[in-house]
Amino acid sequence: MVLRFGMVGGGNRAFIGDVHRHGASFDDLAVLSAGCFTRDAEQNRLAGEKWRVDPDRVYSSHREMAEKEARRGDGIHFVCIATPNDSHFDIAKSFMERGIHIMCDKPLAFNLEQAVELARLARKNSILFGLTFSYAGYAAIRQLREMVGGGLIGDILHVAAEYPQDWVISSLVQKRPDQALWRFDPERIGPSLCTGDIGTHLHQLIAQSTGLRIRRVLARFDTYPRHLPLETNTTVLLDFGNGASGTLWASQIAIGFESEPRIRIFGTQGSLEWCHARMGKVKYTPINSPTREMSINREYMSEASNRLCRLPAGHPEGFYEAFGNIYHSFCRHLLARMEEGKAEGYAFPTVDDGVDSMRFVKACVESNAGGNVWISLE
Amino acid sequence: MVLRFGMVGGGNRAFIGDVHRHGASFDDLAVLSAGCFTRDAEQNRLAGEKWRVDPDRVYSSHREMAEKEARRGDGIHFVCIATPNDSHFDIAKSFMERGIHIMCDKPLAFNLEQAVELARLARKNSILFGLTFSYAGYAAIRQLREMVGGGLIGDILHVAAEYPQDWVISSLVQKRPDQALWRFDPERIGPSLCTGDIGTHLHQLIAQSTGLRIRRVLARFDTYPRHLPLETNTTVLLDFGNGASGTLWASQIAIGFESEPRIRIFGTQGSLEWCHARMGKVKYTPINSPTREMSINREYMSEASNRLCRLPAGHPEGFYEAFGNIYHSFCRHLLARMEEGKAEGYAFPTVDDGVDSMRFVKACVESNAGGNVWISLE
Amino acid sequence: MVLRFGMVGGGNRAFIGDVHRHGASFDDLAVLSAGCFTRDAEQNRLAGEKWRVDPDRVYSSHREMAEKEARRGDGIHFVCIATPNDSHFDIAKSFMERGIHIMCDKPLAFNLEQAVELARLARKNSILFGLTFSYAGYAAIRQLREMVGGGLIGDILHVAAEYPQDWVISSLVQKRPDQALWRFDPERIGPSLCTGDIGTHLHQLIAQSTGLRIRRVLARFDTYPRHLPLETNTTVLLDFGNGASGTLWASQIAIGFESEPRIRIFGTQGSLEWCHARMGKVKYTPINSPTREMSINREYMSEASNRLCRLPAGHPEGFYEAFGNIYHSFCRHLLARMEEGKAEGYAFPTVDDGVDSMRFVKACVESNAGGNVWISLE
Amino acid sequence: MVLRFGMVGGGNRAFIGDVHRHGASFDDLAVLSAGCFTRDAEQNRLAGEKWRVDPDRVYSSHREMAEKEARRGDGIHFVCIATPNDSHFDIAKSFMERGIHIMCDKPLAFNLEQAVELARLARKNSILFGLTFSYAGYAAIRQLREMVGGGLIGDILHVAAEYPQDWVISSLVQKRPDQALWRFDPERIGPSLCTGDIGTHLHQLIAQSTGLRIRRVLARFDTYPRHLPLETNTTVLLDFGNGASGTLWASQIAIGFESEPRIRIFGTQGSLEWCHARMGKVKYTPINSPTREMSINREYMSEASNRLCRLPAGHPEGFYEAFGNIYHSFCRHLLARMEEGKAEGYAFPTVDDGVDSMRFVKACVESNAGGNVWISLE
Repeated sequence: MVLRFGMVGGGNRAFIGDVHRHGASFDDLAVLSAGCFTRDAEQNRLAGEKWRVDPDRVYSSHREMAEKEARRGDGIHFVCIATPNDSHFDIAKSFMERGIHIMCDKPLAFNLEQAVELARLARKNSILFGLTFSYAGYAAIRQLREMVGGGLIGDILHVAAEYPQDWVISSLVQKRPDQALWRFDPERIGPSLCTGDIGTHLHQLIAQSTGLRIRRVLARFDTYPRHLPLETNTTVLLDFGNGASGTLWASQIAIGFESEPRIRIFGTQGSLEWCHARMGKVKYTPINSPTREMSINREYMSEASNRLCRLPAGHPEGFYEAFGNIYHSFCRHLLARMEEGKAEGYAFPTVDDGVDSMRFVKACVESNAGGNVWISLE
Repeated sequence: MVLRFGMVGGGNRAFIGDVHRHGASFDDLAVLSAGCFTRDAEQNRLAGEKWRVDPDRVYSSHREMAEKEARRGDGIHFVCIATPNDSHFDIAKSFMERGIHIMCDKPLAFNLEQAVELARLARKNSILFGLTFSYAGYAAIRQLREMVGGGLIGDILHVAAEYPQDWVISSLVQKRPDQALWRFDPERIGPSLCTGDIGTHLHQLIAQSTGLRIRRVLARFDTYPRHLPLETNTTVLLDFGNGASGTLWASQIAIGFESEPRIRIFGTQGSLEWCHARMGKVKYTPINSPTREMSINREYMSEASNRLCRLPAGHPEGFYEAFGNIYHSFCRHLLARMEEGKAEGYAFPTVDDGVDSMRFVKACVESNAGGNVWISLE
Repeated sequence: MVLRFGMVGGGNRAFIGDVHRHGASFDDLAVLSAGCFTRDAEQNRLAGEKWRVDPDRVYSSHREMAEKEARRGDGIHFVCIATPNDSHFDIAKSFMERGIHIMCDKPLAFNLEQAVELARLARKNSILFGLTFSYAGYAAIRQLREMVGGGLIGDILHVAAEYPQDWVISSLVQKRPDQALWRFDPERIGPSLCTGDIGTHLHQLIAQSTGLRIRRVLARFDTYPRHLPLETNTTVLLDFGNGASGTLWASQIAIGFESEPRIRIFGTQGSLEWCHARMGKVKYTPINSPTREMSINREYMSEASNRLCRLPAGHPEGFYEAFGNIYHSFCRHLLARMEEGKAEGYAFPTVDDGVDSMRFVKACVESNAGGNVWISLE
Repeated sequence: MVLRFGMVGGGNRAFIGDVHRHGASFDDLAVLSAGCFTRDAEQNRLAGEKWRVDPDRVYSSHREMAEKEARRGDGIHFVCIATPNDSHFDIAKSFMERGIHIMCDKPLAFNLEQAVELARLARKNSILFGLTFSYAGYAAIRQLREMVGGGLIGDILHVAAEYPQDWVISSLVQKRPDQALWRFDPERIGPSLCTGDIGTHLHQLIAQSTGLRIRRVLARFDTYPRHLPLETNTTVLLDFGNGASGTLWASQIAIGFESEPRIRIFGTQGSLEWCHARMGKVKYTPINSPTREMSINREYMSEASNRLCRLPAGHPEGFYEAFGNIYHSFCRHLLARMEEGKAEGYAFPTVDDGVDSMRFVKACVESNAGGNVWISLE
């Protein structure tokens, strides 16, 4: 059985829409069958044509799409939401109320209240609700989780996560027109820039790779260029309880780095490291032993990780394929529900992870506003 | 306008068929419209269904496919050949004789004679004939070519190209069943294993990144495990004329390496380096200056290279996307012929590169058999 | 003119004494002429013999040594103190009171009060007082300072400094007898383990490479193994004023790292990076440009940095040579005072840096004890 | 007991003399006691004074030095020869004939004939004759040898050794005055430039790390700038017999590289890699396992390797210390002869290695002159 999916968004020039579309269908588990790709009617029509969507199923509004698809016998099983985050709430609600499953771009919503409500609706309507925290999709991250879970590094003592990029400073210094300038507007994106945009990626990366939950945060925000309304550099002390600590650093003014999340996990018996610049590798050091550099899709990696690989070891699978893995796992779970597949060992970020990440951002904002004090997340 | 393409092969479990299919349609320039995916009739039918090909256009033989598609008004513009290389000749011939363009998996053919004949037929029938030498597709390789062409490293003095992998030794020591064991059979693959399989990748990588042509080779073959009929480790001295020399080392018994082609180009004014493990980076050292690490899709890279990038710098594009780039460039040229696009600056390996690579392999085999003597390629 | 120096300590098996001895005489600016190498009389005698020190100038106590050397016409110009830090105060005092200059192992003293008093005595007695914060001695660190000072990265926005090592966790898990176990005793080392031992290295590395002064700290200490009396993992938020922020992470339980300080300096126009594992390299990224990897002792490096190199680029100079550089700079200044040399461009950590670092440790201890609150250093 | 040594050379500004002097005395096994440091009488005197050599033992000629030292009761045990290689023969002969042991800078002599004669004299006079092939001194190289010897990588199949540097091209393009320009004169250095100067380092690196002997070579020389009388780029195919092959590439026109020898050893059960840029690391990959990065002076390294380390893991020991290791091993053997120490497990390059390397150079010259044909070394 092949799933049918629709898209809201993805018809303009933002690169992420294209990544969603490829990701959802990468492994032939789902086929694009409906869409409301952009508000521009002509562009919307052309997008549908290009992607071989039945013209009757190219809609001018997400509401129309939700209603009509829900009524069809061959309607979509899930919708992919690839619009700016201030619109996620309304769109997701429309589809969930009609029993259509959701894969949503991150962050989940505009604020924590919306996020909590979305989670409630998902539970109420038995909706499978995924979020494309992209880095969670890499096979290597899955390997980290298996190794932590298997006790290979003992108890976790410290986690150091960072995501430096130069996006904001490079763009603003060049003063180039940029399609993403809405990201600087608190009315559009909420009370946080850097923390919400990329800090949440780290928050999720920690959750996916370690299984740890953050109990308290102490955050400091910096803003450069000074005239921006929101922070562009964030440092957060993390408290996981039970003596495990961590730090999270996200920066959009870090010249010399493009998009380079890195996580290092230190335990009582060993350590693990992954970075985006070497996305197919895991560094593992057992105590008093040499560091191992492990490659995805080798015989010594876990089955759960190798299942997310398509190519022989050494052939790089990148960002598109990581998205493909998130969709793949989501589709496996959806198919399992429909009694046509098994989903053991497949994982993807859910609406609950989305709520957690919104709660994390809110706590960081409060901590910073309060003069860098500890804020509980519980 | 969207091009239509068909596939011969790709319906069994070999990973490369999937890479072709994704690559050909990655940027929506072409859509899969016909196929003869595998000899197994039921598998063939299922593949067509999964990939949304009209059942009437799923064929049981490539000959039938060529004939019927050629007769249709909406027939395919090009065919992608993703079968073992001993079948390339017959398949390509069938389609070329009917005016259908070709994108063929490497190596081009079983031997040099076939290759030369294919090139002749391509010219005679005005066929656009591409080869998927995958590494040529990386945006970074395009950048190398632009920098060499722009004189940034002066005249080339020496080229060091290597492709170590552990495939053969790792497979044979584990004695695991492997779908690719036909690669050890000279009846299927011709008189060379390592040189033909991955040495040709280096040959093409040198051609694409430097524009140099090899004039003479001196090759030494090693075979391990000893009972194999063909070489698994190849070292070749290269002579480019005009005082430029080079070495090419390909190995399938290099434990510690997965699929890691690397090229280093040394000139009178600077040097360049690229390796597959860091496929989105170019190392450039002007004489008496620090080494620069350049990233694809940055403002300082050439337009011709950035045109091959889909994602913001730092988001890895891998093997699938490199294939996508070769198909993208091919499609641009095909569309330009049909007066619907421009193809300036787009390049892809052609049937002539394929002939060159077969000639290279033949010369290496002769050089080795003759006791490691120089053999001219001219 | 060649300077004469003496040593207190260095006669037992601790590796650092040997590093001091080599460092002080590496470039033939000073010669070992007296010593009180260890409390074991026979070992002391043998050390003097081995190192060709006149037996009359091998002393059984530092007081005797200070007195007698001060009285000699050919007495030592400076003394190198390479004993545990609880003894630095008394020893340094003895020599300073007699006008003998000091090079002291870090940390400067047992606590801030001692440190302040030593600085006062140094000023009062016109003593040149250096500290061997070893990393400050690398030629690459000098290059960082020149580049920051020259405005190449604009105004500094953020500094990320880290020093992970596995020393404590590796030692304790192996339960091996270790000559350095005194480091766990607060009676010997004061109120801090990790912060005092290696956090101070980062504190000094920041000072030497950027020239910035820390205004406030917010520190969190972690202790593992839990039964230890002092912290083994430290995270500190730094405030440099004027909108410049930073983080400092020092850990002695970071499996996978040996002794790997790293500093990254982010400015408005570029960034710089150095790490101990590649001690002869500097990474420099101008905004919107490729990253440069610069090598020490190349023509494009600053004169002040190249002056600290002895070998052609590419020949590694390590820890001994870095110590040699600190002593070299110290000796240049001492010779300049004696009107026999110039010391422009030579820098070394001084007693004032030592006071700053003790103040830093104290503030971190207070911040942690107070529940991770900001503590001013001013 | 402390050995006494003398130096011939080392008094001018060439960096290598300083490296010898430090190396010989690094671990207090030997003390500089006599010298003929340079032909300039005043410089010679000053050097002796600076290095605390008895003025009576600062000689104006190596012959005088050999004679007088041989007659003294407290004469030197060995001499270190740090002069250009056309003078090695005469100097070494003088000392050997008087029973004084030798440590000589590489290459051993001006030509093979001289080298063979030196080896004969060493045997005849029971002389311990070492050569400072510097890379052999790194603790990591010793580790390679132990691991190969211990069978960890099985039988060796292929060795890839390279030494790229930019010295010649960088110097000549800058047209800077250079103290080493005598290296371009065949009258001074013999019939080879690049092969003799750095190819021999690789030859020795292969010997020291693998224990293999080269049976045949096939060499190609390139010369750039074209007007130079000797080669600046060398590629050599190696035949070790028993099916083991190799390549050796040395280049002095490789922009982007400083002095970066690298060796990769591929066996039937694993592989090993070392490079100078990470001199304290060994990469080890067992078949079908992750790559290990091993650090010198860790508990998991061999005793023979750790014995060559002075500092805790993570503290870099560089070129000076590598020289120190060669001298250390030499002194251990010398002391063992004098019944005052054990030298098991200590190794250093000997006069026989020097002969081998001269034979290697000669064979390469012949191979290249003969049109790149195989030349036997046996």
